Amino acid sequence: MKLLRVGTAGAERPALLDRDGTLRDLSGIVPDIDGELLADASALARVRAAAETPGVLPALDATGLRIGPPVGRIGKIVCIGLNYYDHATETGAEIPAEPILFFKAPDTVVGPDDGVLVPRGSRKTDWEVELAVVIGRTARYLGSAEEGLAHVAGYATAHDVSEREFQIERGGTWDKGKNCETFNPLGPWLVTADEVPDPQALPLRLWVNGELKQNGTTAEQIFPVGEVVRYLSHFMTLYPGDIINTGTPAGVAMGQPEPKPYLKAGDVVELEVEGLGRQRQELKDA
Amino acid sequence: MKLLRVGTAGAERPALLDRDGTLRDLSGIVPDIDGELLADASALARVRAAAETPGVLPALDATGLRIGPPVGRIGKIVCIGLNYYDHATETGAEIPAEPILFFKAPDTVVGPDDGVLVPRGSRKTDWEVELAVVIGRTARYLGSAEEGLAHVAGYATAHDVSEREFQIERGGTWDKGKNCETFNPLGPWLVTADEVPDPQALPLRLWVNGELKQNGTTAEQIFPVGEVVRYLSHFMTLYPGDIINTGTPAGVAMGQPEPKPYLKAGDVVELEVEGLGRQRQELKDA
Repeated sequence: MKLLRVGTAGAERPALLDRDGTLRDLSGIVPDIDGELLADASALARVRAAAETPGVLPALDATGLRIGPPVGRIGKIVCIGLNYYDHATETGAEIPAEPILFFKAPDTVVGPDDGVLVPRGSRKTDWEVELAVVIGRTARYLGSAEEGLAHVAGYATAHDVSEREFQIERGGTWDKGKNCETFNPLGPWLVTADEVPDPQALPLRLWVNGELKQNGTTAEQIFPVGEVVRYLSHFMTLYPGDIINTGTPAGVAMGQPEPKPYLKAGDVVELEVEGLGRQRQELKDA
Repeated sequence: MKLLRVGTAGAERPALLDRDGTLRDLSGIVPDIDGELLADASALARVRAAAETPGVLPALDATGLRIGPPVGRIGKIVCIGLNYYDHATETGAEIPAEPILFFKAPDTVVGPDDGVLVPRGSRKTDWEVELAVVIGRTARYLGSAEEGLAHVAGYATAHDVSEREFQIERGGTWDKGKNCETFNPLGPWLVTADEVPDPQALPLRLWVNGELKQNGTTAEQIFPVGEVVRYLSHFMTLYPGDIINTGTPAGVAMGQPEPKPYLKAGDVVELEVEGLGRQRQELKDA
């Protein structure tokens, strides 16, 4: 299923994109798309049954309707750094021996087509297309990557917007350049895991002002999804509705020759993970 | 006012500790102690009026009643690293030129007297008594430390439990050793800012098995509270109900001679920030 949330920011309603591409209202079936729903097999089964029975879910007019992030009440967002062989190489970093992690606050999440703000004083606002993993079951001290995958509810396209000076040159940890307002566009859809047979075979692409900048594949991930979930579960407990941004492939501005083409107000970024939907953001000054 | 939340984990009710030390039920006045309440001056005024009128707030029997964290629905927890001159010195670190920040996920928060879990495989679980700042107004690009202080709703005692091997020796950022389950005891009280005339004059102390280990003062903070709030507001937006753990003074296990006395199951940690209440945790195996 492709689950999503539509409406004004903070007042989104749950919806579903059916096999014919029609947007359908889920608000009569479930209150929201969130960790509580994702952990509730019988509620998900109700949604699935409704989706497969013609006439049950009312169609929604998509015209002018904002798409919000596909998960509400996100608990935490854990991000994996330097998780693609090609991206680690372009940044001049060594291949990590174990996953590098950092955090984005859930309040950085916006819809896939919402504006992204260039922070005041920023000179190095950069893009990163990523595969986001949405957790569906509480994960503690998992024993294998297979178990890790079994705790995944679904996948989404994520934009891990990053300010490189804040991240790297201002002292301390990467979190400083990862948590500016609007820095995590998410969606349009949460695609349930049953419809993503191999999360390690997903092309990812990102364009700036129409020019292709990133063109990678999750096959290049150093630590694949199941292993990332297993690994994280030994350092923290993952809860339904938590999100993991699994890293970005090569092609970010930081990896380009000088003058590096960092983002500025007026730029338009488009990105997609194949099968998970496409985002489009216009950059604005904060 | 001393605001708190009592009851079983996840089902706490709002309460108030009155000037006579009597615990009083606030659940007839406000639904919870959270960002929504802290941002709502008229709701806070209602609480204050009720607290000051004898007979309005029913007394609660404190016997056997669990105290939860004093803030519900925490949005994010930003932590400041190496923010005390004496602690930076004991860890062999340079005095930071600007605040170092890292994150704890809100799901690490437990009540002040709840058990703390030593993670599986941990050999370096460490203590850190801290002054927690609770945000009361949305803070974006503040211009001064005075403005920073004006965005603070109140203060609480926090325990920033840390696994030093996970934090420092396992690659990547400090977040890896800061987010294990139960790693952020908070409370007992949220003391409103009007009752903390100078947040830079608060003694902090921590004992392990009755032995005094940390004995500092917020006067030693490199970046004082107002400046921390101002600084953070240029890298992220702070929202009501967000929390800042403002760093720890000298005396952590990592700073002791070998063999360093890291925590193990059965140890008892007690800590307090003077005027903000005392915590007591027994360590257990995860």
